[in-house]
Amino acid sequence: MDIILTGDRPTGKLHIGHYVGSLKTRVSIQGKYDKSFIMIADTQALSDNALNPGKVRDNVIEVMLDYLSIGLKPELNTFFIQSLVPELAELTMYYMNFVNLGRLSRNPTVKAEMKQKGYNDKIPVGFLCYPISQAADITAFKANLIPVGDDQLPMIEQTNEIVRRINNHFNKDILKECKPLLSGVQRLPGIDGRAKMSKSLNNAIYLSDSRECIIKKVMSMYTDPNHIRVEDKGNVEGNVVFKYLDAFDTRKDEVEKLKQHYEKGGLGDITIKKRLIEVLDEELSPIRLRRKQLEKNKEELLIMLKTGSEHARNIAADTLTELKKVFCLDY
Amino acid sequence: MDIILTGDRPTGKLHIGHYVGSLKTRVSIQGKYDKSFIMIADTQALSDNALNPGKVRDNVIEVMLDYLSIGLKPELNTFFIQSLVPELAELTMYYMNFVNLGRLSRNPTVKAEMKQKGYNDKIPVGFLCYPISQAADITAFKANLIPVGDDQLPMIEQTNEIVRRINNHFNKDILKECKPLLSGVQRLPGIDGRAKMSKSLNNAIYLSDSRECIIKKVMSMYTDPNHIRVEDKGNVEGNVVFKYLDAFDTRKDEVEKLKQHYEKGGLGDITIKKRLIEVLDEELSPIRLRRKQLEKNKEELLIMLKTGSEHARNIAADTLTELKKVFCLDY
Repeated sequence: MDIILTGDRPTGKLHIGHYVGSLKTRVSIQGKYDKSFIMIADTQALSDNALNPGKVRDNVIEVMLDYLSIGLKPELNTFFIQSLVPELAELTMYYMNFVNLGRLSRNPTVKAEMKQKGYNDKIPVGFLCYPISQAADITAFKANLIPVGDDQLPMIEQTNEIVRRINNHFNKDILKECKPLLSGVQRLPGIDGRAKMSKSLNNAIYLSDSRECIIKKVMSMYTDPNHIRVEDKGNVEGNVVFKYLDAFDTRKDEVEKLKQHYEKGGLGDITIKKRLIEVLDEELSPIRLRRKQLEKNKEELLIMLKTGSEHARNIAADTLTELKKVFCLDY
Repeated sequence: MDIILTGDRPTGKLHIGHYVGSLKTRVSIQGKYDKSFIMIADTQALSDNALNPGKVRDNVIEVMLDYLSIGLKPELNTFFIQSLVPELAELTMYYMNFVNLGRLSRNPTVKAEMKQKGYNDKIPVGFLCYPISQAADITAFKANLIPVGDDQLPMIEQTNEIVRRINNHFNKDILKECKPLLSGVQRLPGIDGRAKMSKSLNNAIYLSDSRECIIKKVMSMYTDPNHIRVEDKGNVEGNVVFKYLDAFDTRKDEVEKLKQHYEKGGLGDITIKKRLIEVLDEELSPIRLRRKQLEKNKEELLIMLKTGSEHARNIAADTLTELKKVFCLDY
């Protein structure tokens, strides 16, 4: 039985970095495994947005709109809202007893995020504990395949450590170990050339962006700062336009010829940017169109999420019941 | 509306240190406030007993037997089991976002326990977080009076910090601040003279100890190591027998005379120990007798605890619903 769990933190609309990095893979694999759960991680999003819950709430529906717009299907995936499965909080509480503070603080993903956010020991305890909360999410559904990027591998390892500690100590295969399902796609840089595309860096193209917005963003895109006149030799390495063409343009040989031309000199930024605009718009306009349709029935999406959450809750409750038995909490 | 919350970790039977320090007060105040909740904190006990849940489970009933034996009444108190109120786990998860790691690590009670248990950064995350879990316990029931010893004051402060952060930020009196109800009774030392009476130090007299057991323990009790012959002058200061007589013997003037006689010389340890045996047995024999009766109906106690937990759960769920509204989680 192969069970997939994926999800996103509802802290903003999804962008094309998410799309290339994970969403496209989700669409391509949907229906190929026994079960698939897609979680909108509102509880986790609150761990570093506790003072701004309205933002999280608004984005739950935005993320769901993005999901359905790109072609994820409710008949092939269980969509659910994390806070509507309170069993996940209980599991997290119990798992917290099987992880020590030193181990948690040395988690490379947590360390990187602590550094990025400048937290030090001001880190909210809930945020520090999110690898444990993720272990709860994964194991609750007995998910064994987790589509992730390289940077999330320490999360998989943390989950499996908890699984092994509990299974070994109680000498019973209660929880299931999981494996990463690596997408193999490299990370898309931001339009400013920075390594990460993110809302907070204000360098993202969103799945819901209009054609006008795409034009504006692509036109401002980072290319080669030394490529000033058309006849200048240009650098393809680190040039965001070519990075995006590599990710979205299906006519690989044409892109190859453009790269050579650009390096030799004689190809202007405007030309490659115009091509990128068309390529992006071709990919995003059907998504945008579906989104417009779906936006008319937000209530329906919420009902879909509630139904999914109810289903997810039943499964998580079964896992919790099994665990409570070995924890001698089966009153 | 005055609401009391107290409780114990079910890691062993209760001893006369608990009795003098808090249980007697609970009996004397029962019925004097609007509501009283008494929690058997199995979830909290697991935070440093995760690999030994059977011990925790067994002691849930032992602690309940102790409660009813000393005269706590189910018609005046709601007895409940912490793990049967899963809303407390949810509240803990949300509160974890309002406390940072530095603040938690500097909690004097946590620091003292970390040192005592020699944890350092090997501390289980669940144990580190127990002040947050206690804040959830207290606020879930809107308890405003918490019977505690001095050493637990930092817990009250941590709870009130969370309450104020949430109430202030959301500009609404959702949660209630609490105050300590200090017992004023000094801590009873162990029979070996060490400051703390505890199961792990093997220096406790239990509420359920037989007369024979009490005789044996009192006879081995630490007095004055320099008081060798009856005619020797003896030291009352630090003498465990006198500490216990102070705590249990109601004939204060007679105890005063014994102290003077002991200091002057001519009063043997055997004499004061025999008196202490009678005083203790007088206090403990009715408790022991009631316990024997109650032990015949353990199933009934479990039903009582389940009923109490159901009641507690309804109240905690109301608080959680109010909080979820301000956290924009009211789907």
